[in-house]
Amino acid sequence: VRVTIALDAMGGDRAPDAIVAGAVFAARACDVDIRLVGDPVGLETALASHRGPVGLPITIVDAPDVIGMDEAPLSALRRKPRASIAVACEDVSAGRALAVVSAGHTGATLIAAHAALGLAPGVDRPALAVLIPTETGSTVLVDAGANVECRPEHLVQFGVMGSAYARVALGRARPTVGLLSIGEESDKGTDVVREAHGLLAKAPVHFVGNVEARAIFRGMADVVVCDGFTGNVVLKVGEGLAEMFERVVRRDLAANASGDHSGPVEEALRRFKHLVDAEARGAAPLLGVNGLVLVAHGQSSPQAIRNAIEMAATLARAGFVNQIAAALGS
Amino acid sequence: VRVTIALDAMGGDRAPDAIVAGAVFAARACDVDIRLVGDPVGLETALASHRGPVGLPITIVDAPDVIGMDEAPLSALRRKPRASIAVACEDVSAGRALAVVSAGHTGATLIAAHAALGLAPGVDRPALAVLIPTETGSTVLVDAGANVECRPEHLVQFGVMGSAYARVALGRARPTVGLLSIGEESDKGTDVVREAHGLLAKAPVHFVGNVEARAIFRGMADVVVCDGFTGNVVLKVGEGLAEMFERVVRRDLAANASGDHSGPVEEALRRFKHLVDAEARGAAPLLGVNGLVLVAHGQSSPQAIRNAIEMAATLARAGFVNQIAAALGS
Repeated sequence: VRVTIALDAMGGDRAPDAIVAGAVFAARACDVDIRLVGDPVGLETALASHRGPVGLPITIVDAPDVIGMDEAPLSALRRKPRASIAVACEDVSAGRALAVVSAGHTGATLIAAHAALGLAPGVDRPALAVLIPTETGSTVLVDAGANVECRPEHLVQFGVMGSAYARVALGRARPTVGLLSIGEESDKGTDVVREAHGLLAKAPVHFVGNVEARAIFRGMADVVVCDGFTGNVVLKVGEGLAEMFERVVRRDLAANASGDHSGPVEEALRRFKHLVDAEARGAAPLLGVNGLVLVAHGQSSPQAIRNAIEMAATLARAGFVNQIAAALGS
Repeated sequence: VRVTIALDAMGGDRAPDAIVAGAVFAARACDVDIRLVGDPVGLETALASHRGPVGLPITIVDAPDVIGMDEAPLSALRRKPRASIAVACEDVSAGRALAVVSAGHTGATLIAAHAALGLAPGVDRPALAVLIPTETGSTVLVDAGANVECRPEHLVQFGVMGSAYARVALGRARPTVGLLSIGEESDKGTDVVREAHGLLAKAPVHFVGNVEARAIFRGMADVVVCDGFTGNVVLKVGEGLAEMFERVVRRDLAANASGDHSGPVEEALRRFKHLVDAEARGAAPLLGVNGLVLVAHGQSSPQAIRNAIEMAATLARAGFVNQIAAALGS
């Protein structure tokens, strides 16, 4: 089934060039129509730099403004109602596209998506779900940073929505759900975590109890639930360690004159980087808004944008938003 | 200067054998007297298995009970007032020793130390400070798990006490203090973090603002302050990633028949493990109690126990508890 994706062409550190290149890749490889949302003049120029864009299923949609990565999102969106992310979200609410993909300001994407699409019934807070690699495959971490503070019932909703995502993204019929805490016992953790433990045990999910941060990477649960502050820390510690490890090992290699071991060690470094790399994780769906919205990393390459578009198309074809709504209604 | 250390010989996963072996190592190598606190019969037997313990400056102190790693610490300590950790802490409060070292139940150590020694003036909550390796050296992470929930003023006290520790442990005259958050801007983070930001800016520390989890490992601050839940997550993500990486890379090595690259890759793995290993971090001082208490990892080896005893002696000689009190009074 052919689906139409609204792509925020102006958001992200490498916009619009990397975004446009990703759109061209996706338009050639995937069964999608792309609405490229942003400044028409700049986008025409960027598109023209690719060989043979003529005839590709890419339509430019005029959005004169951009929300910068450093702007306060709420006031910026009020000042610029025709910013690219807002226009892309309206494309979905008006039925012109089935999904939004943006590598722009995450907070602005959240607010614009919430405003244009509203929340699914039963959801108080949308949450970002990322796939993190583990020893046994992947785990859905939710919330990865949309909600700095959460009440226990929000964590329960994250568990329900994360399960729906794990069914599609991991192909698990009955995904296990763990609650991130500092001990396996039900009385470990903050008051919010302890209360969420009790609520999750009664929720319509396959709850397996608390999971320690160390156990995430052993694949102890298909879905790991936490507030967005903690989720952000989990992801950023991984990225920071990979950076440190790479520099330390390269320093060792450079200092070690006894033969060139760089090949296999470089391979191991690449392996580790891939395990924790933001780009390898792919785009994160914003669970709980009444429409499909994917947040790509701010530094996304053309390949990452292409993958995000493909993932958006897959989730759209699977009727993912309806699956979330059904899970919440159960 | 010769100092006396009270060593909880019964606490930890490898007690008493690994603890006794560590005591023997330390008694031979460091300028310390050791009070080995626990079951006298078991400790005599364990000591006798070492060559030449006769004449070593080790005294056995009778403590008939132990707090198990799985017990609820508060009720267990009430039931067992003569548990090894309680007797060790009383050794310090009675002036028979200058420091306690324990690899036992962290919560029990906290409660026993608080009860026997009290808090330093100006401290509401004791906190665990661990040294974590970074690209440029080490950083003090505080709180590493003593306080699951914190108020803003607790985080400020952690910053002041962490600075005093960084002066001794890192040799920094004016340590920089960062507040762990999910963005560098002062308005990023939970309400508690945002309020702590304002208070730290006015506190007698060299505050450098928010630090993201990723930046810890670049050595962005000598002291990184957070609540104990988040601190635990930071440490455990590192341990979990090291485990996963080791297994994944070994699997790759085993699957790769093209020559034996194991040497240099194993070396890189060792390097990474050392960067995040609980044992490599050494013992963590409990900052804020009115006496010197060091928490060693539950799985501490004899070498780790020896190092913890040496560290306790160094901090005792430096008058560390007085330095903390002075820092808090300023």
